[in-house]
Amino acid sequence: MSKKLGVAIVGSTGYGGVELIRLLASHPQAEVTSVISSSSAGTPITEGYPHLTGIREELLDDVDAATIKSKADVVFLATPPGVASKLAPELLAAGLKVIDLSGDFRLKSPALYEQWYKKPAADEEHLGKAVFGLSEIYAENVRGADFISNPGCYPTATTLGLFPAVKAGFIDPATIIIDAKSGVSGAGRGASLGTHYSELNENLRAYKVNQHQHIPEIEMILSDAAGAEVVTTFTTHLVPMTRGIMSTMYASVRGDRSLNDFLELYRSFYEGRPFVRIRPEGQWPATKEVWGSNYCDIGFALDSRTNRITIVSVIDNLVKGAAGQAVQNLNLMMGWDETLGLQFVPAYP
Amino acid sequence: MSKKLGVAIVGSTGYGGVELIRLLASHPQAEVTSVISSSSAGTPITEGYPHLTGIREELLDDVDAATIKSKADVVFLATPPGVASKLAPELLAAGLKVIDLSGDFRLKSPALYEQWYKKPAADEEHLGKAVFGLSEIYAENVRGADFISNPGCYPTATTLGLFPAVKAGFIDPATIIIDAKSGVSGAGRGASLGTHYSELNENLRAYKVNQHQHIPEIEMILSDAAGAEVVTTFTTHLVPMTRGIMSTMYASVRGDRSLNDFLELYRSFYEGRPFVRIRPEGQWPATKEVWGSNYCDIGFALDSRTNRITIVSVIDNLVKGAAGQAVQNLNLMMGWDETLGLQFVPAYP
Amino acid sequence: MSKKLGVAIVGSTGYGGVELIRLLASHPQAEVTSVISSSSAGTPITEGYPHLTGIREELLDDVDAATIKSKADVVFLATPPGVASKLAPELLAAGLKVIDLSGDFRLKSPALYEQWYKKPAADEEHLGKAVFGLSEIYAENVRGADFISNPGCYPTATTLGLFPAVKAGFIDPATIIIDAKSGVSGAGRGASLGTHYSELNENLRAYKVNQHQHIPEIEMILSDAAGAEVVTTFTTHLVPMTRGIMSTMYASVRGDRSLNDFLELYRSFYEGRPFVRIRPEGQWPATKEVWGSNYCDIGFALDSRTNRITIVSVIDNLVKGAAGQAVQNLNLMMGWDETLGLQFVPAYP
Amino acid sequence: MSKKLGVAIVGSTGYGGVELIRLLASHPQAEVTSVISSSSAGTPITEGYPHLTGIREELLDDVDAATIKSKADVVFLATPPGVASKLAPELLAAGLKVIDLSGDFRLKSPALYEQWYKKPAADEEHLGKAVFGLSEIYAENVRGADFISNPGCYPTATTLGLFPAVKAGFIDPATIIIDAKSGVSGAGRGASLGTHYSELNENLRAYKVNQHQHIPEIEMILSDAAGAEVVTTFTTHLVPMTRGIMSTMYASVRGDRSLNDFLELYRSFYEGRPFVRIRPEGQWPATKEVWGSNYCDIGFALDSRTNRITIVSVIDNLVKGAAGQAVQNLNLMMGWDETLGLQFVPAYP
Repeated sequence: MSKKLGVAIVGSTGYGGVELIRLLASHPQAEVTSVISSSSAGTPITEGYPHLTGIREELLDDVDAATIKSKADVVFLATPPGVASKLAPELLAAGLKVIDLSGDFRLKSPALYEQWYKKPAADEEHLGKAVFGLSEIYAENVRGADFISNPGCYPTATTLGLFPAVKAGFIDPATIIIDAKSGVSGAGRGASLGTHYSELNENLRAYKVNQHQHIPEIEMILSDAAGAEVVTTFTTHLVPMTRGIMSTMYASVRGDRSLNDFLELYRSFYEGRPFVRIRPEGQWPATKEVWGSNYCDIGFALDSRTNRITIVSVIDNLVKGAAGQAVQNLNLMMGWDETLGLQFVPAYP
Repeated sequence: MSKKLGVAIVGSTGYGGVELIRLLASHPQAEVTSVISSSSAGTPITEGYPHLTGIREELLDDVDAATIKSKADVVFLATPPGVASKLAPELLAAGLKVIDLSGDFRLKSPALYEQWYKKPAADEEHLGKAVFGLSEIYAENVRGADFISNPGCYPTATTLGLFPAVKAGFIDPATIIIDAKSGVSGAGRGASLGTHYSELNENLRAYKVNQHQHIPEIEMILSDAAGAEVVTTFTTHLVPMTRGIMSTMYASVRGDRSLNDFLELYRSFYEGRPFVRIRPEGQWPATKEVWGSNYCDIGFALDSRTNRITIVSVIDNLVKGAAGQAVQNLNLMMGWDETLGLQFVPAYP
Repeated sequence: MSKKLGVAIVGSTGYGGVELIRLLASHPQAEVTSVISSSSAGTPITEGYPHLTGIREELLDDVDAATIKSKADVVFLATPPGVASKLAPELLAAGLKVIDLSGDFRLKSPALYEQWYKKPAADEEHLGKAVFGLSEIYAENVRGADFISNPGCYPTATTLGLFPAVKAGFIDPATIIIDAKSGVSGAGRGASLGTHYSELNENLRAYKVNQHQHIPEIEMILSDAAGAEVVTTFTTHLVPMTRGIMSTMYASVRGDRSLNDFLELYRSFYEGRPFVRIRPEGQWPATKEVWGSNYCDIGFALDSRTNRITIVSVIDNLVKGAAGQAVQNLNLMMGWDETLGLQFVPAYP
Repeated sequence: MSKKLGVAIVGSTGYGGVELIRLLASHPQAEVTSVISSSSAGTPITEGYPHLTGIREELLDDVDAATIKSKADVVFLATPPGVASKLAPELLAAGLKVIDLSGDFRLKSPALYEQWYKKPAADEEHLGKAVFGLSEIYAENVRGADFISNPGCYPTATTLGLFPAVKAGFIDPATIIIDAKSGVSGAGRGASLGTHYSELNENLRAYKVNQHQHIPEIEMILSDAAGAEVVTTFTTHLVPMTRGIMSTMYASVRGDRSLNDFLELYRSFYEGRPFVRIRPEGQWPATKEVWGSNYCDIGFALDSRTNRITIVSVIDNLVKGAAGQAVQNLNLMMGWDETLGLQFVPAYP
């Protein structure tokens, strides 16, 4: 067997990092050669994650570009906001390919980043270089790129559900309303009252209404689809479950379209893209139906009384919404089949 | 102490019935004198509900108007769709006051009922007599009435959140979109794949999109508020929790309103109505914050970018959405303080 | 109506404190006149607990014996380990009655406390004065006392399940094995990886095996029952739910006893004590069947193959395991009916 | 690539069957060539399991030995109790290898089966032929066999945790007490009040105390280890989660053993068996740490006060407790590496 591509993961002790380890464990062409955590360097990864006992027993590495380069060709950055903006330039300069899972390089305008993220933005040069890796929409840009900015979880579920209809002019972008719901793992592993079991179990809460930092990212993608600036209403809710995002989306239909017109549009748009599954009329995707997998499932209802379309899109936030799409982008970057290492059947029930 | 009012519950083995038992156990003026179940008559209620051990040990009664009349003055009907339409006329004829928790008498048009419920409607005479008991809106009608149709769970959460704004013309009713989420107990105690633990746990699903039988009830109330016919978009989701409903509602604001205008409107509208709690700016009600209580909590956000208002309204579906509001209507019917027996602090956490 | 007894709660921002507020809200003879939190003094209690909106809107008080004495006659201490040992003497000296919900005064030996709690013990004088308030066992001591040490959650569920059999010599104390399971709220409101939603949901874990600080408390009570020193095996597990404790207990039966002998022994032992409910043969109590209530439900199975008895005992850890039993002790102290303010029907489902 | 081994699954619409489909989808040497369900034959499997959309779209086959033989060489029976006893002989006669996941061939005594399962037993000839496939213990018997009886979920977790200590005489078998806890998926997909979401969520219940049909299976294995008849106390609990079994086991230690003696015994016993992971002192396995994987993780505590050992063993009931161990047995039967197709990293969180 030929040698596999070496891959390093910075931020291996977060949920995004540990999910990359899970997915890449069965990748036929790539292997994780360095697991890195600046905060826990020198300790075994099994200390924080005993589920890796017997699977990965090595000590966590510290972040150092030269050392990484000696072990790997590609680096995944699964770091908190504000870290990758400093780290990526250095890693790129060392000759590494970089896939950043954080939000640091998604927005092209530093001002917009600073407005929504309340942190200093990355430099404009690198913002310009980062290719936005929404795999099903921008695969052409990703192929052969060296530096990928991986999309956010909410934007992935939402824009995969809206892009074809906006692009084709089937719906009026000014009427789009997005009601999004997420499992708790999207908040990461950091302990806080907001992620405390007794506060979230048997509870449903709205949060960051109109203020979520994924709003400008969603609008960036939808504006690209529309060929004009799109402004949306976007609400997020925390659901008592660990994994899963559902975006329920509403828009007014332009002209006289049937539900079948929508189904055909989407099937045609996503033809040959195995991770998007269009559900037949009357069938609504549930988050568990994509749990642990890289799928994005989309269902539709057209209400003749209001001429509005309702679109429901679901993903596993840690897979298609983070680590899975990052691996998909790795595959595209390397010119491989985009499904390599990602052919997990959803774990049901 | 003077004798308490005798109350009978038909459908005592359903979740609505057993919640009535819980609430009425501490009512200072009423007491449950007969627990009735046609399917389980003659067996102890503790057989199906051991949590009532030592609290209510009697055998379940069968449904018989004369027997009920000998034991009680008021009957709650917590029965499946299609039962109350036949039972209520007989009980009323026997001189009993009736509070129906099912949907049989909510819609005034038999045709509309049959279209949405897929069952034969009640007779028009009794449809006309039933007073729709959305307590905070129609208290005047409820006071002194003999026959109350208790609202549905989704309509209660939704219309308490929308009524003042529609009535005052603050929002355009044609733009209303309602994204509703419910805990599983709303589906009742009947076992099915759709309520199976392993299918719902760690899962979020949409269901009955644009087809829920509560849609015409919501539109009936909103049309009353608007003084004109209102048609809405309404989506329901099943959340992995037992109790709680959240309606997240969107509408375009008419004219130039501030968030404070909305807060003042709602505070004024619900002044003196202790079960509706208007949350201050920036605070979103969560379902657990009303768990086990009769409260409906409402929060608001105004998005200056789109001039849309987002309204979040939460209730406990078994209390304010069913048994609690039924007791509130009992209190209003009898001319008592509407909070009697309902002053539960939400059970948190 | 005569004036109610004034009650203060120190530690009002913890789950034990806020549950006291819930329970005492419907107490006919006592009322909470001061809610105290040293860490959050001067802020409204609704800031951390919006479910109290419209119910208790006052600012949190700081801890000061003289001020408390001016507002209240009884103080509940719902504080972390090591606080009450310093605070209680001062409050008692100020003429207040004290009910301590922490573990600081349960063990009579300072050495034992320091061994299991890893903290300095309270002074021996006050350790000697504190009456251990396991209500169904030590009611005689509690009546008229000024200073109560409220039992722990695990000891309450466990020893109510074992005491009669040990006392009567029906089982061999040396063979007792206790497998206990708790909901997460027992860990309090402090955020940590150990209470993080994504780590606990869809997960079951053992913890502190043979090392839980409730072990010496359990052994103290069982030794009292046996009239000789009892040493036990005690394991604790964290269950993905918010409230509820179940102790499953095993012991070898002494001599030739039938299951009915056990049922009669327990029914007789707990006669007139309404909060202990003995389940009939073949019926196992579930934690939800006591949720939100002060009940302790106990079920039995006798295995003729091994001559072992299995005893299952369940409580709501925040009610009978903390705030509810504290109110029960207040009632006993004051010479009231022990059920005052505690007649909640379990919230099911 | 050489042709893969064809595999058929009878009972494809149950949780065991659908989990076999998930696991075998990534098996390098075997592939599912027929999915069979007598109750749903002729309908697409995606009708009941939309998560298989785009993965397996074929119609379900009916059960027919000749047809199966034309498509496959091995059959997995994932059928309810009482079905395999009739079906297996016919399939074996047709020249198929059979792996039965039900309990029909586990107990070698028909009388014992009928006592615990309350159903007619399989014929003695086939009971005698079926090799009991507890993979880590009986691998030698499984290699080259044609007919495997796959162990139950509770026996797998329990006996992997006890076998080495019993075999080595480290513990007294007469003192063994097993407190087992399971997620709800173990009860299968059939809808009933016992699997109803609102009844199980936020609830913990004991069931079938001393009466579970897995008791004789556990005793059969432990008796084999002890070389003498072992009788145990075994209690089962239902935990509000979908997947996972934990057995917490207690026994008196024979002689003077240290915890390290136990760790060494188990490490040595399971050397070279990659699916059993022995945890270091002080570390307790949680069910989520094996979720979705074929691992069985075991931890230990020795209590010097009682000279009892506490052993905690966890598995995913649908993987190591059913479909995963069945695939492991397939691998052993075929002389393949036992880990083929089973190298899943647990899905955490």
